[in-house]
Amino acid sequence: MSQITIIGAGAMGSALTVPLVANGHIVKLWGTELDNQIINDLKEGKEHPKHKHILPSKIQMFYAHELQEAVEGSEYIIMAITSDALGKVFDRVVPYLHSNITIATVSKGFDYNKQDEIVILPQILKERLPLGLKHIPIVAVGGPCKANEVVYQSPTNVVYACEDIFKAKDFKRIIQTDVYNVKVDVDVIGTEVAVAMKNAYAVALGFAEGFKDIAGYSHNNTKSALFVVAVEEMIVLVKALGGETRSVIGLPGIGDLEVTGEAGRNRLLGEVIGGGMNSVDALQKMKDQDITVEGYPAIEFGYKLSKQLQREGTLDALPLLEALYQILYNNKPCYQSIKEVLQQWCF
Amino acid sequence: MSQITIIGAGAMGSALTVPLVANGHIVKLWGTELDNQIINDLKEGKEHPKHKHILPSKIQMFYAHELQEAVEGSEYIIMAITSDALGKVFDRVVPYLHSNITIATVSKGFDYNKQDEIVILPQILKERLPLGLKHIPIVAVGGPCKANEVVYQSPTNVVYACEDIFKAKDFKRIIQTDVYNVKVDVDVIGTEVAVAMKNAYAVALGFAEGFKDIAGYSHNNTKSALFVVAVEEMIVLVKALGGETRSVIGLPGIGDLEVTGEAGRNRLLGEVIGGGMNSVDALQKMKDQDITVEGYPAIEFGYKLSKQLQREGTLDALPLLEALYQILYNNKPCYQSIKEVLQQWCF
Repeated sequence: MSQITIIGAGAMGSALTVPLVANGHIVKLWGTELDNQIINDLKEGKEHPKHKHILPSKIQMFYAHELQEAVEGSEYIIMAITSDALGKVFDRVVPYLHSNITIATVSKGFDYNKQDEIVILPQILKERLPLGLKHIPIVAVGGPCKANEVVYQSPTNVVYACEDIFKAKDFKRIIQTDVYNVKVDVDVIGTEVAVAMKNAYAVALGFAEGFKDIAGYSHNNTKSALFVVAVEEMIVLVKALGGETRSVIGLPGIGDLEVTGEAGRNRLLGEVIGGGMNSVDALQKMKDQDITVEGYPAIEFGYKLSKQLQREGTLDALPLLEALYQILYNNKPCYQSIKEVLQQWCF
Repeated sequence: MSQITIIGAGAMGSALTVPLVANGHIVKLWGTELDNQIINDLKEGKEHPKHKHILPSKIQMFYAHELQEAVEGSEYIIMAITSDALGKVFDRVVPYLHSNITIATVSKGFDYNKQDEIVILPQILKERLPLGLKHIPIVAVGGPCKANEVVYQSPTNVVYACEDIFKAKDFKRIIQTDVYNVKVDVDVIGTEVAVAMKNAYAVALGFAEGFKDIAGYSHNNTKSALFVVAVEEMIVLVKALGGETRSVIGLPGIGDLEVTGEAGRNRLLGEVIGGGMNSVDALQKMKDQDITVEGYPAIEFGYKLSKQLQREGTLDALPLLEALYQILYNNKPCYQSIKEVLQQWCF
């Protein structure tokens, strides 16, 4: 029996309590200040107010001000915080860490580090560890994993990647059940870049869904062609950054792109723009409905990263990512841009 | 300007008249005895009776007994016949072939050759060419391509593969438009095996859709995990048969699997079985509704082929294909089998 603290009581953080409790561990769920109502409701045995799950009764719940108590005595930490807040929240956790802890992160995306470089999220965590704790292993979690299906126990396969494969195996040992299946890997970069970029490319898959609305007939051929181009570009980017192709043609890449392209917020943003709305209005519409679209910043991060690598001469052009950026950030016409990308891909 | 004869007036055969006519070619569409009503209607300017397309008025239509007239003078032939009838129909075309003709096939699947070996479809054609015409190039066509979207002109990317790349380029030159985009390749084996097997694996993706019906909640994680396993197994099979990985992670593999997994008859068969119906009843139901499911024979062909390669020691186990075969041909329980495949994949 181990003790695990989950930082963040959102969809994924709360869902991961299910396999952990099933395996008989002590599970502590900590919520940020934004999660107070969630912790209230869960403590009263109600369903998760945002995600409508009933969670295992055995988990221990902690409010924002109870962070020390929540982390104390744990061997494992799971960071389940949105990518933009990950660093800040982790800074609050750091004082309570000890030498023998292992940390996993389920957040998806890129961020700027303190030197204003674009980095993957495990790097954000690593840089914030104090000198004596730099050895703490960071495990990247990727793959097609809708939180509610983890709660309902649909068979789910995910990757836990760590430079130290034994630490990934430790996590597998504590969290794997007969339906939540964990594949271990050492490719942290490939895993993280793929899960971040799949949100970007899912917007392109959404375009094809939107084309139906203006044309009056389906664009499934277009969507599948974009899927192939997306996978190809993810491979190029992952390799340029030092990751492995297998992560792109595995769970974090095509697996997660498949699930994200079938439904979800990234696809929805693309669908609205593909359907004829300009990107400024589409983004405003999402904002008004309080919908966070991870793919939007991922496109900018990916684009800037690719431009940097292209200047350094280590990356070829990524025409679909370029088109995504121009459509979303410079309001370039969507249909024509995508049509051209698919044409040029065949030359 | 070239002259092209399309053999078979079904969905794909008739759809390909659109890019060819758009490029100003002489296009002859020949129907089998089963296509008489189609040819009748098309000659009268009506829509395709089965697929509800209006086709370009410039195409020339030919009945089954007018085969010689249909083929005479053509530089290109496109075989658009269901895989099970391909050899027989081709035997009728052979007497009218000449030395400078190029043949493409859009049929998908495997078949037995005259020595009772399982072969890809271009092989079926090659073996039927008489001695003096053995050099005639066969071009394999693959990729995510719904016929109605070719008619409506949704942007579509496909692969034309031929051992002689220049013959693939000839086809590209005559058929490519600004929306029907052709990528040329030399990997005939990879293209054909991927397009055949994607029908088999689409049945597995359908299972996950069906699980929703018995469980009451979605199994998107399961579906995406199956997508990844399917791609991995297709790569293993394609490589063992002498094809290239790039075709599996390109249009014929993941591209076509994506479109087939979102909708279509193969997915539907899987969905019905995943939803709890035993495979015998599910197949009978499809038969009653006159629905041909290409994935069903593809599973048996793929399974037998894999067993043969495993006996020869050139192929590892393919657990998902094995499960597909046992579920569809031996009525093994679906949910439990798929759950086990996903579990074992992570060990």
